[in-house]
Order: sequence, then structure tokens, then C-alpha cells
Amino acid sequence: MKKIIGILGGMGPAATVDTMEKIIKNTPATCDQEHIPVIAISFPDIPDRTENILSGGKSPLKKMIAALRILEDAGAQCIIMPCNTAHYWYEELKAATKVHFLNMIDITCNKIVSEGMNNVAILATTGTIKVGLYQDKLKKENINFVIPDDIQQVIIMESILVYKSGNGERAYQLLKSIISQLKDIGVENFILGCSEIPIILRGNDNNGEYIDATEELVRRAIAWC
Amino acid sequence: MKKIIGILGGMGPAATVDTMEKIIKNTPATCDQEHIPVIAISFPDIPDRTENILSGGKSPLKKMIAALRILEDAGAQCIIMPCNTAHYWYEELKAATKVHFLNMIDITCNKIVSEGMNNVAILATTGTIKVGLYQDKLKKENINFVIPDDIQQVIIMESILVYKSGNGERAYQLLKSIISQLKDIGVENFILGCSEIPIILRGNDNNGEYIDATEELVRRAIAWC
Repeated sequence: MKKIIGILGGMGPAATVDTMEKIIKNTPATCDQEHIPVIAISFPDIPDRTENILSGGKSPLKKMIAALRILEDAGAQCIIMPCNTAHYWYEELKAATKVHFLNMIDITCNKIVSEGMNNVAILATTGTIKVGLYQDKLKKENINFVIPDDIQQVIIMESILVYKSGNGERAYQLLKSIISQLKDIGVENFILGCSEIPIILRGNDNNGEYIDATEELVRRAIAWC
Repeated sequence: MKKIIGILGGMGPAATVDTMEKIIKNTPATCDQEHIPVIAISFPDIPDRTENILSGGKSPLKKMIAALRILEDAGAQCIIMPCNTAHYWYEELKAATKVHFLNMIDITCNKIVSEGMNNVAILATTGTIKVGLYQDKLKKENINFVIPDDIQQVIIMESILVYKSGNGERAYQLLKSIISQLKDIGVENFILGCSEIPIILRGNDNNGEYIDATEELVRRAIAWC
């Protein structure tokens, strides 16, 4: 049997589904049996990551570790966590398991470096922005980047929450307005650094300017398998 | 925490993803935490069900039971198996677990009865047709149904296999030609009785004549939770 990918997911549930779709899409296969085995734990009741970071709401760590244990017991050999903000707890999660655990922030930043991208904007939750998950790594690599201003960031977060509440069209309009503003100030590339964002933008024009963190994570996981 | 749905999946992997999407779509929720927890085992290397039925290929039962054990150990409280053909082994699987295990064939037939549908065609794998999974239940309920003739069935199976090999457009054309032929002989309703079929037809005109077995299964699972 091929190696099993374990998905520590549910943050949110649609992002887990998007991840599984991307695993299928990126795997060359002519029949079921050539696809990669996946165990997905989609526990949407893991406490909100951004809420914890911004206002000290309930920590998600305990529930994330519970999901990690299920993946370990089930035989997952490579774990991915398609939630950028959740990577704030990555080091603690990685230390809690012996299973190979990929880091989507590192993988996405490596992609930017290897492609020689610059003038990058980070589209992410307010939690991810506040703790500097992407900024720290991009600075180290001397990548020229911007983060949205405070008002833009409120609108991006609103877009993500509106999507999670089921209004995809409104989420798209909100996000698209910010992308447009950022292009006007010279942004050339956008990190889709919240796993809801590629879904909000799905089916819309990507002329290579979007760096989809979920897709990069999935590609690396498949390569590892 | 809400009750956990366990998916015995990977037959094929896209059908598992479709099932998870339908769980999200059918759950009224305004944020992540209101969604239903799901554990999905997507093991695409479970031996081909139709091949075993038609030509005595390797039995899928052992691998299906292994996946069932993982779901049990992980705490799944209601198991669904989004593969119609795999329900040939339903009684054995059900007997092998104490966890509540829904039967998609029964649920779909109950829907047909409760809606008073008639002149139904069964669109399914050649394996599902050969062992009469749907025919037996529909006969008991005195539902007037047809199965595709031998040539039509070969084309339906080809459509399913072509979809699994990655050619969605060709799969759609093949399937659509058979649906059209069946409409010409008076068929009014179609059981989408292979979990790839609703994906092949996705985004195309359904004027209420398609009974999507995956969607019926998901709705019942959500109601149970």
C-alpha cells in the first residue's frame, strides 16, 4: 500500500474537502487503486484559532492533539494541517508526534523563494497576520512583501467569516475588492494564506499571481508519498 | 461535541470528497463550530468491487473491515459507505461492527417510495446491476423500474471507468447519451446508483428526475446526528 496522508482538518470543513480534492487532482491515476490513501479528521469544533490569538478565546491545542492521536493510531505516515492560522501551534504539535508533519507556511515560502517572486501580499486571517507567521519567514528570505492595512484586513477577515457562514458570493466580492486595491499599489503576487481563500477565489481568474498554500502543501505531501 | 460521522470511503476517492461536500452543504451552519465532525477513511486501494462480482477478482471485504476498525477506534458513531456496489457486502460489514451503519440502497429506495416515484431507471455499475442490489428492493415495493440493456450497461460502466481515469467530459457524454435513450422509452426518474455518477452529472440540468443516492445517504446521516 502507498503511504497514508493524514489530514488534521475541519479548520474549516470546506478547506479539508478542498485539500482532498487537490490530492486527487495532483495525483496521476487511471483507476481508484492508483490514488493515495487518506485519513481525514474533520473536527470543525476545534476552537477558533484567530479568536484565541486575538482575544484569548479557548485554545485549540488540546483538540488538535486529540485529532493528531487519532491520525497516529489510524496509521497516517505524513500529516498535513490545511489551516494556516493553526500553524501558530505547529511546533507544539510537531513535538507531540513522531509522525512526519509538514509545515504549510515553510513550504509556501520556499515556493516563493524558488520561483523568485517579489512584491508579495499576504492574504490571511487576522490571527495569522498578527502573529507574523508569514512575515517572519519572508523577512528571513529578503522577500519584498506587504500586509493589508487595518481596514483591508478587517474586510479580508469578514470575507473569510462570511464564506464560513455560507455566503460564497459576498465573500468573493469582499476579497476581490482588496485584491484590486493591493494590485493598485504594485502587488504582483498574493499568498492565499488562509485555507478558505482559495475556495473563495475558486473558478476565478488566476494568472499565476496567486500562491495557493493548500495546493503547495498537497503537492509536497504527494511528493513525499 | 456533535456525533461523529465516519466515512468508509475511497471507493472511489472523488466520491468520498463529494460525500463530505454534501455533508457541509446540507448542514445549516454559520461558523466552523456548527458543522458536523467527520472522520473519512479514503482507501482507494480497496479491491475493485465490480471486478470481484463479475470475474472473481480479489475480495474487497478484508480491506473494508480494516477501514471499519479504524473508524470504530477513532470514535465514529454513525458509519456511511458512499459506494453503492460495496453494499453487496453490507450485511457482513454491519455484522462486524456495533456502530450504527446506514444502508444507502435502502435509504434511496425508501425515498423513491415516499415520493411516489415510478418509471425509474437504475444507473449503476455492472456489479450493482448484476447482483440486483436495487432491483430486489424496488420489486418488493412494487416500483416500476427498468435496467439498461446490455449495450447501454457497457457504456454506463465505461463512463464510470473513464471518469475514474480522469476524463470527466467524456464520462459525461457517454452517460448523457444513455440517459437520453432511456427517456425516449418513458423513463421519468433515474437512480444515480453509483457514487461517481452524481459527480459525472454535476452542474448539469437536474429537473428533479435524478435521485442521488449519495445525497440521500448524507441527509439521513445528518438527520441521525
